[in-house]
Amino acid sequence: MTAVAIRHLRSDAPEFDEQLRRLQHWSAETDAAIEQRVAEIVDDVRRRGDAAVLDYTARFDALPAASVEALQLTRDELKQAFDTITPAQRDALQAAAARVRAFHERQLEACGRSWHYRDEDGTLLGQKVTPLDRVGIYVPGGKAAYPSSVLMNALPAQVAGVGEIVMVVPTPRGEKNALVLAAAYVAGVTRAYTIGGAQAVAALAYGTAAVPRVDKITGPGNAYVASAKRRVFGQVGIDMIAGPSEILVLADGGTPADWVAMDLFSQAEHDELAQSILLCPDAGYIADVQAAIDRLLPEMPRRDVIRASLEGRGALVLTRSMEEACEISNRIAPEHLEVSASEPGRWEPLLHHAGAIFLGAYTSESLGDYCAGPNHVLPTSGTARFSSPLGVYDFQKRSSLIEVSEAGAHKLGPIAAELAYGEGLQAHARAAEMRLRKP
Amino acid sequence: MTAVAIRHLRSDAPEFDEQLRRLQHWSAETDAAIEQRVAEIVDDVRRRGDAAVLDYTARFDALPAASVEALQLTRDELKQAFDTITPAQRDALQAAAARVRAFHERQLEACGRSWHYRDEDGTLLGQKVTPLDRVGIYVPGGKAAYPSSVLMNALPAQVAGVGEIVMVVPTPRGEKNALVLAAAYVAGVTRAYTIGGAQAVAALAYGTAAVPRVDKITGPGNAYVASAKRRVFGQVGIDMIAGPSEILVLADGGTPADWVAMDLFSQAEHDELAQSILLCPDAGYIADVQAAIDRLLPEMPRRDVIRASLEGRGALVLTRSMEEACEISNRIAPEHLEVSASEPGRWEPLLHHAGAIFLGAYTSESLGDYCAGPNHVLPTSGTARFSSPLGVYDFQKRSSLIEVSEAGAHKLGPIAAELAYGEGLQAHARAAEMRLRKP
Repeated sequence: MTAVAIRHLRSDAPEFDEQLRRLQHWSAETDAAIEQRVAEIVDDVRRRGDAAVLDYTARFDALPAASVEALQLTRDELKQAFDTITPAQRDALQAAAARVRAFHERQLEACGRSWHYRDEDGTLLGQKVTPLDRVGIYVPGGKAAYPSSVLMNALPAQVAGVGEIVMVVPTPRGEKNALVLAAAYVAGVTRAYTIGGAQAVAALAYGTAAVPRVDKITGPGNAYVASAKRRVFGQVGIDMIAGPSEILVLADGGTPADWVAMDLFSQAEHDELAQSILLCPDAGYIADVQAAIDRLLPEMPRRDVIRASLEGRGALVLTRSMEEACEISNRIAPEHLEVSASEPGRWEPLLHHAGAIFLGAYTSESLGDYCAGPNHVLPTSGTARFSSPLGVYDFQKRSSLIEVSEAGAHKLGPIAAELAYGEGLQAHARAAEMRLRKP
Repeated sequence: MTAVAIRHLRSDAPEFDEQLRRLQHWSAETDAAIEQRVAEIVDDVRRRGDAAVLDYTARFDALPAASVEALQLTRDELKQAFDTITPAQRDALQAAAARVRAFHERQLEACGRSWHYRDEDGTLLGQKVTPLDRVGIYVPGGKAAYPSSVLMNALPAQVAGVGEIVMVVPTPRGEKNALVLAAAYVAGVTRAYTIGGAQAVAALAYGTAAVPRVDKITGPGNAYVASAKRRVFGQVGIDMIAGPSEILVLADGGTPADWVAMDLFSQAEHDELAQSILLCPDAGYIADVQAAIDRLLPEMPRRDVIRASLEGRGALVLTRSMEEACEISNRIAPEHLEVSASEPGRWEPLLHHAGAIFLGAYTSESLGDYCAGPNHVLPTSGTARFSSPLGVYDFQKRSSLIEVSEAGAHKLGPIAAELAYGEGLQAHARAAEMRLRKP
């Protein structure tokens, strides 16, 4: 097997900035034909409801059914799936769920509670934080069926106190993934439907006779699902539209090269567009990682995908220093950022933009993906500049609370009136001024 | 002047559910011609940068300029505008800003701080909360130029610690609104450009030679601006796309009818699509409010807009009880919800979905719009079911922190490996298993 032709870059090369820009480039352009098709499907489901859902499910998933109710899976059926998987799988799912739940409970405590205060005039101000009533979780079927993704989407909703968690998962030709259904059982999914694609997104967004309308839809999906989520945004909330998955490893040369090579593989094995980048100030270590890549690749069942990803979008970058590596990392704003260094706490304060930061040699991204506790749904394609991991906060909303006292109305009235007249909104001004007099 | 023909509904009528559905209907459908035009403008600005911005500004705003730098307003120029407004206006702006800032500082303390903990194995888990580096604030020009909107968008960004706040505001024919610029000065806007429309949104999203690329764009705008924000979403963050403004008043009959009528007006005066609804279990009081509407309307300078809004989209609804009024309010999920009742605290716990809840007779929406403290940028069109007021949290992002100890890696490795093999991701499993051995 030939050596993996991953690109080697140097940050001190004059063309580095341009190389980095090209490396980061990923087109989120949408396909006009897909957009058009999805618009038709969404409109059709909105108009014809269950009948349309049944038609598309029969056509796209080769799964004819007499009614959408017949495609529903109850909690009992999810439980049955849980009972059929191996004891080791059951234990792993439950252990992972317990840790993910515990982390999100801490998150709820840290930032998910209502609060209020009274100012000196007795006016009450605050925010009431409440869970969403009902959410939809989209779970892909087929080859990329990930039970861990069910846990990561449903558990924050459950911890937030969402009343009903409705899962949709396509099952082409009726083939169900027992691990996915078992994960749904463990994560508190209320009910599930074996439907998918744009038709499932539309059914959740608008509701049909069988499928209840939800308030928000989260979870990954193919281009049709992504397009449908964009289209129904506003009617319901959605999470971010994810791009290809990425890992950036900052290494000081102290971690075994095999570990780092395997971490790069674990991102690359997702698909050919996934991106694995190493930043390191030690040229000898970079050579060790290249050697480890070449040595370990033949052992990997998904070696073809890994090679295509590393050669197409990967890079091993020699930096001037760890400080410069941190600065380059901030420009990239990676989804996953491993700081594989002996003093990770020295570099963490320099890192401003990342979905998740994995500190120290023992913290492989894969531990975070499955069971460390934090969410594995993270902002991709540089969107960590402005967005956050999926969390309890995504399944809550806030309402401002204002109770102005009589004294407060006397103080605030003239201020509001002055500004309202300045904006030409006289009714606003009058409403404030009326409160200056006794009723 | 004829009586205002606002619709009177009764919740006990068999057709009420359907009437309510029709009342709530507002089509967010986008205009394909606008979409197409905006796509061209955004692409052009992305390609030609400043040259394109100058072309569109000359054409749409009748404001020719030699360079985009010539359209920039520095802090000094904002200060000059602040010095030209009246002392009363200066005082009102500063008083409002102080209160809005104080509320958002409370919000930062309540839910905007980093946190972490260690589990029993010494593994560190947490979230690092950091401000966005640079944000753009869109401020409409012309007739709907609202200085209060500048405060409400810029102050949460400033409190969050955003490094740079860039404002764009179109100034057709070069006419500047001194109150808007003064508000920008008070609210800590770093610099401003007198550009607007889709071209300004594109310049902020992609950056040009003169305009720096931002991480998020917030603020209201016309259909072109809304379409451009949707289009650049993903490249940058955006706030919600707002629909028409709405108020829902729950009244038990104890508040002076004039006050409630004026509160309904203050929403209706925004534009003809704005919506004002009263829910009340007291038929006599509803008649009083109708009489107050008819009596007060002729005094209002914006009476034509108010009448059109009330007759087109308003309603006075007789409910069976206050409890039922709360239940109907939850179905509507209004942007502004006034509980104009003698015991507002009795009803507040029953209210689950609203952008802001104004409690008690003294709490006119207009006090909240300008200076109570909470943000006036709120979810419209029922989106309070799943979204929140603009806040400090919109100008921060979170990064998960994970530092797995050696003991933690030994405990988590087998769990991660079991799940990874179950998903067919062998590199993930191997990366976890490698950490089970000493390096």
